[in-house]
Amino acid sequence: MRATIMHRSHDVRIENVADAAIKFPTDAVIRVTRACICGSDLWPYNDGPTPGGQPMGHEAIGIVEDVGSEVRTLKRGQLVVMPFAYSDGSCQFCDEGLNTSCVQGGFFGSPDVGGAQAEALRIPYADGTLYPLNVGPDDALMPSLLTLSDVMGTGHHAAVVARVSAGKRVAVVGDGAVGLCGVIAAKRLGAEQIIMLGRHADRIVLARAFGATDIVSERGDEGIARVRDMTGGFGVHSVLECVGSEGAMTTALGIVRPGGAIGRVGVPHYDGIAAKQTFFDNIVIGGGPAPVRAYIDELLPDVLEGHIEPGRVFDRTVDLDGVPDGYRAMNDREAIKVMVRP
Amino acid sequence: MRATIMHRSHDVRIENVADAAIKFPTDAVIRVTRACICGSDLWPYNDGPTPGGQPMGHEAIGIVEDVGSEVRTLKRGQLVVMPFAYSDGSCQFCDEGLNTSCVQGGFFGSPDVGGAQAEALRIPYADGTLYPLNVGPDDALMPSLLTLSDVMGTGHHAAVVARVSAGKRVAVVGDGAVGLCGVIAAKRLGAEQIIMLGRHADRIVLARAFGATDIVSERGDEGIARVRDMTGGFGVHSVLECVGSEGAMTTALGIVRPGGAIGRVGVPHYDGIAAKQTFFDNIVIGGGPAPVRAYIDELLPDVLEGHIEPGRVFDRTVDLDGVPDGYRAMNDREAIKVMVRP
Repeated sequence: MRATIMHRSHDVRIENVADAAIKFPTDAVIRVTRACICGSDLWPYNDGPTPGGQPMGHEAIGIVEDVGSEVRTLKRGQLVVMPFAYSDGSCQFCDEGLNTSCVQGGFFGSPDVGGAQAEALRIPYADGTLYPLNVGPDDALMPSLLTLSDVMGTGHHAAVVARVSAGKRVAVVGDGAVGLCGVIAAKRLGAEQIIMLGRHADRIVLARAFGATDIVSERGDEGIARVRDMTGGFGVHSVLECVGSEGAMTTALGIVRPGGAIGRVGVPHYDGIAAKQTFFDNIVIGGGPAPVRAYIDELLPDVLEGHIEPGRVFDRTVDLDGVPDGYRAMNDREAIKVMVRP
Repeated sequence: MRATIMHRSHDVRIENVADAAIKFPTDAVIRVTRACICGSDLWPYNDGPTPGGQPMGHEAIGIVEDVGSEVRTLKRGQLVVMPFAYSDGSCQFCDEGLNTSCVQGGFFGSPDVGGAQAEALRIPYADGTLYPLNVGPDDALMPSLLTLSDVMGTGHHAAVVARVSAGKRVAVVGDGAVGLCGVIAAKRLGAEQIIMLGRHADRIVLARAFGATDIVSERGDEGIARVRDMTGGFGVHSVLECVGSEGAMTTALGIVRPGGAIGRVGVPHYDGIAAKQTFFDNIVIGGGPAPVRAYIDELLPDVLEGHIEPGRVFDRTVDLDGVPDGYRAMNDREAIKVMVRP
């Protein structure tokens, strides 16, 4: 079968690899019907992948093609969402809704389990990992449903951890797909003011459509000053940090109000969080890999009923052969998020 | 009047200073009936105070002796709790219960406002700052009521921020008065397991009396391993970090469970918090100067009804002349917490 392998920085190839196959009795194999390229895929695209070649892709919708002997809830032909992390669905962390800390879990897009930017993929702990969908494989809602595998659940996680609730002032740092989904999540949770920190015209249009009330395009100290101006000088109750760079975190710390919270969902590319300012201002900092599997129960009805349309973050669709150029387009900020139809 | 001034590391003196007096119309002056020495006073005791001499003491109960022309809710003769921070009681942060971020607020025990280890003290924003008590000035509950000025409210803050609730596994780092009050707070909020990390026999006895279910006296990696052994290998849901040293924070990070929370109430003497481990484990970190003024409403009834007895942390009482030796005794771990009767 064909799959996406990243060999080096800026070197993404579509290659023939061994067919995905059941390895353990709790596995399933899915035929990928939709996958996509993630903003987090751009970190290895720029900084270098796992040595020896990294199979890419951790977001997918697919059709169950084969199941191991111990898979109980899934049958061949079932359409499913594949969250970016696999999880057994039965450990204490899965029970508590933190599937990304599952004791037997792990992440797709690695040499161990392969990636979803491929024709097919083996799914560990299929019963716990996959979320069944009761729509057709070409349903018009497919883009929005696909975001439940990562970006919509991740934006929601940032908002939950940042304690967004009715009437709160919120800022979203990062205008990528996750940040845009963070705007949707903040609005959905009742935020009164939603400030998007971003500078790309196409993304700003979408942020406004999703519910952003203010846009701040300045960066660094200037951006911080602008947000403070817009919030009575004190900053916002909730910051959704959707980038992971040191600059983004510095901005987040600069615009959060005393007693406020920062929800981090960008993989951190910095080592330490300022311990003193956050203490004296009673700032809460949380977040991490979003347990998107657990959030689907809450988010899916809003997608099915059309209350939220996170699928609008996809502004380009490619087949497998188009994946390398899809990386380039996202890296050049030509595309917000690229959907893959293998 | 006589007051405690710290001149240098280990150099605490009782001196004659100008009488406390009204300076602004919103001020009051209290005659201090009870004060105490705080674990946080040992930081300047060891590392050096504010240059020029630092008036010490930020916890007190006292009798209102004089009020400014704009004080509306307090009269002469009223017995009051003086929280360690003053606050106007009317800004948006005070409204939200975060008095320690009051826009006009500040902290006692500084050259600007003086300290409570003294015969009397000027209280800025008296209406917002002081909390009236309806008991006599020598009531048997006085030690416990005095803890509402800092340590009991601070232990409670650590527990609230660390999200202690019914059935949770909790660890308390630090066996000083705040840590011991943290044990009371964790039990009061329904924790199932309360592990005290401490090594002083007298404090361990008290921790057990307050509700600690387990004691870990090992330190560093050995202590971390012991806590993990006691918690199924995963660590605790909630850590109350009641010290503020780098070692205490390292321990907190080592024993917190994925998805858990750390409530910091020890003034941090370290610069950065590990950004990556906390991210991948979805750890929440919060805390800061406790808004003890706001917590009195919740905690006072439990003190008055005898459900909690935080006053048991006091194991020595001195008059003003005994204050310098009180510092020494607390610093040498001869006393847990020293009460001052000026």
